Amino acid sequence: MENLIVGQSGGPTVAINSSLAGVVKKALESDKVDKVYGMINGIDGFMKEEFVDMSRFVSEERLNLLKQTPSSFLGSCRRKLPEIEGNEEVYNKIFELFKKYNIGYFVYIGGNDSMDTVKKLSLYGKEKGINVNIAGIPKTIDNDLAVTDHTPGYGSAAKYVANSIRQLAMDTSVYNMKSIVVTEIMGRNAGWLTAAAALANCDKITPVDIILLPEVVFDKDKFIDRVKDVIKTKNSSIIAVSEGIKDKNGKYIGESAATLMEDGFSHAALGGVGKIIEHIIKENIPIKTRSIEFSTMQRCSAQNISLCDYEEAFKVGFEGTEHMLDGNTGFMAGFERISDNPYRIKTIFEDVCKIANIEKLIPDFMIGEDGMSVTDKYIEYGRPLIEGEPDLIYKDGILDFEIR
Amino acid sequence: MENLIVGQSGGPTVAINSSLAGVVKKALESDKVDKVYGMINGIDGFMKEEFVDMSRFVSEERLNLLKQTPSSFLGSCRRKLPEIEGNEEVYNKIFELFKKYNIGYFVYIGGNDSMDTVKKLSLYGKEKGINVNIAGIPKTIDNDLAVTDHTPGYGSAAKYVANSIRQLAMDTSVYNMKSIVVTEIMGRNAGWLTAAAALANCDKITPVDIILLPEVVFDKDKFIDRVKDVIKTKNSSIIAVSEGIKDKNGKYIGESAATLMEDGFSHAALGGVGKIIEHIIKENIPIKTRSIEFSTMQRCSAQNISLCDYEEAFKVGFEGTEHMLDGNTGFMAGFERISDNPYRIKTIFEDVCKIANIEKLIPDFMIGEDGMSVTDKYIEYGRPLIEGEPDLIYKDGILDFEIR
Repeated sequence: MENLIVGQSGGPTVAINSSLAGVVKKALESDKVDKVYGMINGIDGFMKEEFVDMSRFVSEERLNLLKQTPSSFLGSCRRKLPEIEGNEEVYNKIFELFKKYNIGYFVYIGGNDSMDTVKKLSLYGKEKGINVNIAGIPKTIDNDLAVTDHTPGYGSAAKYVANSIRQLAMDTSVYNMKSIVVTEIMGRNAGWLTAAAALANCDKITPVDIILLPEVVFDKDKFIDRVKDVIKTKNSSIIAVSEGIKDKNGKYIGESAATLMEDGFSHAALGGVGKIIEHIIKENIPIKTRSIEFSTMQRCSAQNISLCDYEEAFKVGFEGTEHMLDGNTGFMAGFERISDNPYRIKTIFEDVCKIANIEKLIPDFMIGEDGMSVTDKYIEYGRPLIEGEPDLIYKDGILDFEIR
Repeated sequence: MENLIVGQSGGPTVAINSSLAGVVKKALESDKVDKVYGMINGIDGFMKEEFVDMSRFVSEERLNLLKQTPSSFLGSCRRKLPEIEGNEEVYNKIFELFKKYNIGYFVYIGGNDSMDTVKKLSLYGKEKGINVNIAGIPKTIDNDLAVTDHTPGYGSAAKYVANSIRQLAMDTSVYNMKSIVVTEIMGRNAGWLTAAAALANCDKITPVDIILLPEVVFDKDKFIDRVKDVIKTKNSSIIAVSEGIKDKNGKYIGESAATLMEDGFSHAALGGVGKIIEHIIKENIPIKTRSIEFSTMQRCSAQNISLCDYEEAFKVGFEGTEHMLDGNTGFMAGFERISDNPYRIKTIFEDVCKIANIEKLIPDFMIGEDGMSVTDKYIEYGRPLIEGEPDLIYKDGILDFEIR
């Protein structure tokens, strides 16, 4: 019997520990695995031999607490491993540690950079004929991984965005005056999370009229015209803007404060792209406008875990580990969508070389013709991912959780 | 039989519609009341004769949806009625409308300014011998109303603050580096909501070390020393700052951008007091620091409704209406605390003249000796108010709600 080690890497989500729970559950059950270790702060901690024993999670109660704990239980890092060629000493060291700790199974939960780690380690292992199985489990609120239909972490972040915008819309509409709220949403290159703003619209209210995605070049004049058009017929409107929108020269709008200042936007622009959009509106249209940056809360609000995300994150961790224990290496587990309605998926396992370092952007058919909205195709895609609410465990009025 | 009219005023909360539900439930049940009206946008809408019939809420299902709807179902206004003397025409008009619509009962749900409306209308009614009963039902996330132990709306906003800070603390701690997060919390003069940050500390983690309240003069040097002290022994810390902190001259720190700029804080200061505190730290201590403004979400996040708040808001609406229907006028319903542990309260009814226009600040015995923390007395006071989670009704992954 060999040992298994699992790590987490990249930015945290509210579902990443559910995937960790899936990995640990399968590993603790398996007769192929002796000890189950967690590496502290990802591959960084592994190289410093900083591990934690995961055996406490044989307790279902603690496993359930782990599942609902936001952020990365094991800590994280942002280290990208160097190219194998010319840096063999790094890989030699890692594989020596595998030997030292009798590690036959290595699971890494993360996004693009983490899949690069999975790729390089598995390629090196194959090259040297060393029998350590390496698996990747996806997570990212950005939903930008290739091959998989969607990523664990996205559904809950999308639920946060949709619920928050619905609630802001109600708050905004209480006074008898025209107003606009700009919400700034994470996603540097891929607009998936910003697109989720559209899910706030329903048959009772439709607060979201304009969605600015990084996939579409930001056109200030067209934007101003669209805002003017919207407020002709509505009292209040919410604008969703991705932190990553760019101008026609590929320059981030959020970084163009200096340029905008020359247009008369002065200092206030430095608060991020939401503030800049707020000021573009204020300078051009006489309407009460404010902006809100969802900031870190969109990736750590465990009150917004979607049941779909929560269960799938566990499932992909569990089944990915199972696949690895069956003798496979160098893959990422993911989802293939079988149907939207009823929503059905199956777990798939793909060569991680097809995934690492590739960013999946929103496809054209999900973006509205005006370039400032999403189509029904996106709604059909996104809606099931935010569905359902797990029974969360609270203590003294606050969500309970596990710490290392 | 006479008619009853109810209105909402001031800033919205997630519990104000639960109070509205309590008022409407009692009114619809009572054999003293004929029609139940809601005034749209408070006294403003009343004077324009803009009402909505509330009879649909005989349905328990719709009443339950109303209870969990954040923001003000009836809309709101910020109008403060003028002094009676010299402005009798305003009051004549209102009382003529009472007569025109056969209104014998008037309920106003709101904060300080709204209680001023209740006071003036009831005084005018008594003066003229007109038999219209006027009642006030409290609501405000600021928790700054006199006489009542606490206000509906506070517990849920406090739960938002405590849960969000706990989750931010977990997010912040994933990387192996020292860091500080500054959270900016509402409350212009009273620090009750900022104090709730202390509820995020528990036996597993204690992320909150510094709480800056508007009740205490902000001393920059003392603050910097305290931060330095905290990070000597901890990897990460959360600082809670009230939007209303002031310097020794009574000037809001959030408004002192110009002064701070001379200290070298440049433009970034304009994002509010959280940003200013962030920059004070960055300029004086070499540590990763960022700031987050909770903004509107702290008063409209229905995912954070506390069961205590939800039930009490309904109760005070229901029992306040009952007291009014029993022939009383010119009062506000509120709570008296009987014990902290077990938490027990009773509903009380007090002369609104003792409440209107008085701000209840945090008493000295709840503020730590260092002026940057709260005492256990606050914890005992605040903890029960964030307890419990109602079963909320979702539709398509988003909290369902009622609209006018």
